[in-house]
Amino acid sequence: MKPLIAIDWGTSSLRGARLSDQGAVLEERAFARGILTVPPGDFPAIFQQHFGAWMEPPDTLCLIAGMAGSRQGWIEAPYCPCPAGFDELAQRLAWVEPGRIAIVPGLNCEHAGVPDVMRGEETQVFGALKLLGVQDALLVLPGTHSKWVQVRGGRVEGFATLMTGEFYALLRRDSILARTMPADDGELHGAAFDAGVALALRDGGLLHHAFSVRSLALFDRLPAAQAPSYLSGLVIGDELRSRQLARDDPVVIVGTDALTQRYQRALSQCGVRAQCIGAQAMWRGLHEIALRLAA
Amino acid sequence: MKPLIAIDWGTSSLRGARLSDQGAVLEERAFARGILTVPPGDFPAIFQQHFGAWMEPPDTLCLIAGMAGSRQGWIEAPYCPCPAGFDELAQRLAWVEPGRIAIVPGLNCEHAGVPDVMRGEETQVFGALKLLGVQDALLVLPGTHSKWVQVRGGRVEGFATLMTGEFYALLRRDSILARTMPADDGELHGAAFDAGVALALRDGGLLHHAFSVRSLALFDRLPAAQAPSYLSGLVIGDELRSRQLARDDPVVIVGTDALTQRYQRALSQCGVRAQCIGAQAMWRGLHEIALRLAA
Repeated sequence: MKPLIAIDWGTSSLRGARLSDQGAVLEERAFARGILTVPPGDFPAIFQQHFGAWMEPPDTLCLIAGMAGSRQGWIEAPYCPCPAGFDELAQRLAWVEPGRIAIVPGLNCEHAGVPDVMRGEETQVFGALKLLGVQDALLVLPGTHSKWVQVRGGRVEGFATLMTGEFYALLRRDSILARTMPADDGELHGAAFDAGVALALRDGGLLHHAFSVRSLALFDRLPAAQAPSYLSGLVIGDELRSRQLARDDPVVIVGTDALTQRYQRALSQCGVRAQCIGAQAMWRGLHEIALRLAA
Repeated sequence: MKPLIAIDWGTSSLRGARLSDQGAVLEERAFARGILTVPPGDFPAIFQQHFGAWMEPPDTLCLIAGMAGSRQGWIEAPYCPCPAGFDELAQRLAWVEPGRIAIVPGLNCEHAGVPDVMRGEETQVFGALKLLGVQDALLVLPGTHSKWVQVRGGRVEGFATLMTGEFYALLRRDSILARTMPADDGELHGAAFDAGVALALRDGGLLHHAFSVRSLALFDRLPAAQAPSYLSGLVIGDELRSRQLARDDPVVIVGTDALTQRYQRALSQCGVRAQCIGAQAMWRGLHEIALRLAA
């Protein structure tokens, strides 16, 4: 197998890892050079600047996942339609330099006449499946735009995007609710978070429940320091309610510790078991694609 | 009956009307002097400046509804708990000048352990009931914060606030969805609005459906000029879905033409009949309170 450089080039960040033949991380780097900061045409130079030294061994392979494959990215890697597995991803790589640098395509699916898309999460999903040694799973990748992904027989059947993180940020920062909240989120207040989840699971909807941040504060029934945790519970709880989860369907949560812990906590309140997988899922997914190429 | 000056002093606007004994509007004025623009202590001067001339006949009565009665207003008019009717409002007026200038209290209610509040809408609700000659109704007052109000036997039994207008503004202006929308909303595109309502009425939830503004645009299936109408349909549709309306329960919509027409259109898509009442509901409500005082 060739030496492998794995890159996660998203909207707001650029991360890279040098991996061993077995997929272990030998070295890792992160930069605030998400694609939004890169002028058109500057992708080769930014790449060379940050990862040129790693690419020096002439047979090195670099695989890139994420928004670098979007229309605003380095080169466009057209979406791969669902259902799709590792083989489809490996076959549809968009080669920046043949045999040397490739971008993993995102996925698209269609539900009720409406398309949905992901870029980057598909690689994390396949990495998580490999790490868990399973072929069937319901996964959630929380974030600015959460992805709920149904996998059967090792292939992504379909998925749904929920703008949970972005709604939280808008309400937290720009809405009337911001007036009764402190400047910083601070530590998670578990009981306040749970109360938010509990309310969100009841009838009423987020448009209504969100107002409780204000009305509870008006009657001194929600301390300002706890309001961000409460709001986080409301928004994540609304996400879980809308997914109509079955109690005996376990969920795999893929992401950073801070977020996966909140989702695990909220899922447990719904009576749903969950398992967490960290950021290594991305590197594992890219490593697996490299193995397919070498096979 | 004394000469009556009716004032609607809200967060962002100040409107006043000189009413006849029968409640007809003799003269109307509007100023961009919502309570957010008034420094503490300046309420008497602002009032005098804009309505002093109208108050000159010494027996003139002025009734004020809206946020002027909040903690950040002229004087605080404590919330009146539901169920509440005209009599409770008239009994609990907060008098700025005894017998001369009074502020109508807002209402509060409690549902599932969570309080809710309104200020100003209670007066519009009672005015609408008088205009319609009914004692029982389900009303919606659309706006930044929509209010759904259940009235039985002439008394407000309970109500719910939905942050529909504010969610729309946040998504329209500050979210990733703004990137594929024109600067101005422009005219309402009826078909796009209806498509938004239709999707919102399906399973999935607003956190998910909102993303369709972006995904449809990515595949050139939603023209930019239609996106604001589509988003408006999504948000209003989500509001209606969460209210779980019965088809044979007609709804009274109280508000400005632009908004009441959208709600009527969306309600008709749900198979729910609706009747619209304009801004005169506020003046009628204040006039009715004055009648009680005179009785």
